[in-house]
Amino acid sequence: MKSYDVIVVGGSAAGLTAAQTVRRHYPNKRILVVRKEERVLIPCGIPYIFGSLENPRENLVPDIAYEKMNLGLHIDQVMDIDRENRVVKTEKEEFGYEKLILGTGSYPAMPPIPGHDKEGVYAVIKDVQYLTDMQEKLKPVKNVVVIGGGFIGIEISDEINKSGVENVSVIEIEKHCLYQSYDEEFCVEMEQQLQSRGVNIYTGSKVISIDGGEHVESVKLSTGKTIAADIVILGIGAVANADLAKKIGLRIGLTGGIVVDRAMRTSDPNIFACGDCAEKVSFFGGNSSALRLASIATLEARVAGANVFGIKRETPGTIGVWGTAVGDLALGTAGLTEKMAKAHGYNVVSAVNESVNRHPGKLAGAAKIKIKLVFEINSGVLLGGQIRGDASVGEITNAVSACVQNRMTAEQIAMFQSGTHPLITASPIAYGIVNAAEAAISKMIKVKEQL
Amino acid sequence: MKSYDVIVVGGSAAGLTAAQTVRRHYPNKRILVVRKEERVLIPCGIPYIFGSLENPRENLVPDIAYEKMNLGLHIDQVMDIDRENRVVKTEKEEFGYEKLILGTGSYPAMPPIPGHDKEGVYAVIKDVQYLTDMQEKLKPVKNVVVIGGGFIGIEISDEINKSGVENVSVIEIEKHCLYQSYDEEFCVEMEQQLQSRGVNIYTGSKVISIDGGEHVESVKLSTGKTIAADIVILGIGAVANADLAKKIGLRIGLTGGIVVDRAMRTSDPNIFACGDCAEKVSFFGGNSSALRLASIATLEARVAGANVFGIKRETPGTIGVWGTAVGDLALGTAGLTEKMAKAHGYNVVSAVNESVNRHPGKLAGAAKIKIKLVFEINSGVLLGGQIRGDASVGEITNAVSACVQNRMTAEQIAMFQSGTHPLITASPIAYGIVNAAEAAISKMIKVKEQL
Repeated sequence: MKSYDVIVVGGSAAGLTAAQTVRRHYPNKRILVVRKEERVLIPCGIPYIFGSLENPRENLVPDIAYEKMNLGLHIDQVMDIDRENRVVKTEKEEFGYEKLILGTGSYPAMPPIPGHDKEGVYAVIKDVQYLTDMQEKLKPVKNVVVIGGGFIGIEISDEINKSGVENVSVIEIEKHCLYQSYDEEFCVEMEQQLQSRGVNIYTGSKVISIDGGEHVESVKLSTGKTIAADIVILGIGAVANADLAKKIGLRIGLTGGIVVDRAMRTSDPNIFACGDCAEKVSFFGGNSSALRLASIATLEARVAGANVFGIKRETPGTIGVWGTAVGDLALGTAGLTEKMAKAHGYNVVSAVNESVNRHPGKLAGAAKIKIKLVFEINSGVLLGGQIRGDASVGEITNAVSACVQNRMTAEQIAMFQSGTHPLITASPIAYGIVNAAEAAISKMIKVKEQL
Repeated sequence: MKSYDVIVVGGSAAGLTAAQTVRRHYPNKRILVVRKEERVLIPCGIPYIFGSLENPRENLVPDIAYEKMNLGLHIDQVMDIDRENRVVKTEKEEFGYEKLILGTGSYPAMPPIPGHDKEGVYAVIKDVQYLTDMQEKLKPVKNVVVIGGGFIGIEISDEINKSGVENVSVIEIEKHCLYQSYDEEFCVEMEQQLQSRGVNIYTGSKVISIDGGEHVESVKLSTGKTIAADIVILGIGAVANADLAKKIGLRIGLTGGIVVDRAMRTSDPNIFACGDCAEKVSFFGGNSSALRLASIATLEARVAGANVFGIKRETPGTIGVWGTAVGDLALGTAGLTEKMAKAHGYNVVSAVNESVNRHPGKLAGAAKIKIKLVFEINSGVLLGGQIRGDASVGEITNAVSACVQNRMTAEQIAMFQSGTHPLITASPIAYGIVNAAEAAISKMIKVKEQL
């Protein structure tokens, strides 16, 4: 039986990053990644298979790191783990380990909607063959209904619309699409963008049933409306895949994920877990967090991978930083929205800045950028930011994330030293992050003057 | 005589931002900006007048803030200040003040090169009429020589080349263009970009003389070479305009700027100064800094403006964050380069990451991004970062700036929670800032293993 210092189960964002991190921190250890997929899909890239890309094979995680970083790769299904003797049992082989990292990912959440097992109902499953079949089935159809107006739902509906399907509809149970991660004004902008591109949106609508014969024909909404559907796609989120962890008796948490401490250790000191399969806590207050994102997975993987032979790192909890884009409109969010912050019990002050990301604004490529920052009113600490604009939103969001991560106050952000240039950013006078902080300070000063 | 609570002298990046900041912090104060220009040019936008824009009038700072924020504006030259009686004397009027903020800017540095006063020799002067004349003079010519390969020099030479001038040459005294702010590998990439677009570059070359009759005809280099020149443009930097401050007896510093403390107070407690006219200290070690940028000016203005009626803020010193772009190639820098850090006496470790800012890389708009981070080896604190890529470099630079400003260590940056999305950023596995930090940690671990 072959033995490794570290075995990683799973080869997606969490598993691959964990293996790379182990290599960086322990140059001489023998590392093996066991994954069941021949090739791994880029999870966030899946919506783009249906419009912008040709097929799932254009959306694969490169395997170059295995060779470059001397990581073993075994493609096989893990069936069991003997924790006492530290042996991983796959369908075909057995491998000894000293330390184990689980990155077994997630399943699409399956809602208990009558008819969800009909032909023509798909989930967003991270499997090349499944998605290739789904892509084939979508080609001749006229009516597609996407259940769920989160980022996967809106991105996939826009891409299917882009591919030429006549009627694409998104059904969202909440008041707005993206309502878990953006304040209302941002949600409305994205809804308008989708509608202007031809996607139908039904918000405040619950799907009562998926109807038809063997094959889906329509969906019925709580509002009484019935929508014709040749294909239904479920895009309502992800739940931890903790099957293997359950089987071997690791502790499982409230949301169904593997319980880990801040060092990403499971209840077995030789086993770590990271990514979608692991329970998460929030950066804000430390409560349980249901957010599952590849960027969170990679953070946790960097913690787990560094810690396998001695604890070096602890996660500060999930900030929740991500973006989405439809056409020329991009949104980004880092941390809490105003609505979420209030729901968490914070007293907040928020401020909005709008600027143009070129100076002068007549230069090519100029886009309007809107930044909303939310601060705790007593300490002035930044709780979150939301950004709307063009592709530059991606990295503005990361600059805001750095401010959140460092628990910067509005005063500290007002002293932010931005770099600016006519062709690539807003002007230094108008720079959005700083000016939103200053606007919030201005509001707080007015409140204090009333004392 | 009219009196104001605060008078700001100068209406460019420093002056306008200072006035806005006073308004935000002191909603009821009477504020007057006195500036000599009818309209103010966007300083960093000046190179783009010569190619991308039609004329200087397309590159003006909007005056909308004066009305929106209730700031008085008086267009006139300040001739003198009576500090004892707190009176500003302009050519036409006198105004009483309680607090004064000087944002008098800078002059282009004028090198003592024989022949610099010939006809056809221009500096980059922030004056609409001067630049309009210069633009007219450039139209019929064949040979333009730009002295100085800093960002102004390379941007203006590229724009003039773009406008159709046949031979445009940049002369740089150092080994490379941009050598004060970028390590060699980044400088070389920008030089190649400029050359591929048709700009001639002469590095390691000093201009010995500007020759001709009344009008310039050529420049002679230290290498022995002579270059034909119908127009010569001096782009070798800026020196503080402290004329008024000198006249009224304020303390002047080693580099010729107005001496200020970290609250931006001058030697007169009722007078503050900010921007190019003020002396600067470095964020790194606190030594004198000669950097003059609009983004530094606005930071100092936010300090000065907030402090006029009670000290609220202190500048941590100049990090030095800025970008430049030529065609589709952009560079950004925040803090110290490896070369500068070593010159400052730091022991450093640096690491480079290269990634693509879309995932998968086949998506439209993908560009290669290179990030180099420089850390102090004992503490692991980030001293600086340099970024090469497309327009997204602008905000990546700001994310790096946030890390520098918070004196984050490589370990903390390895735990950076990035937000990623296929259409607007690199993948979370490959995200550059994090991976450059991890690569540096990996190097440090290998060093420690040798102990």
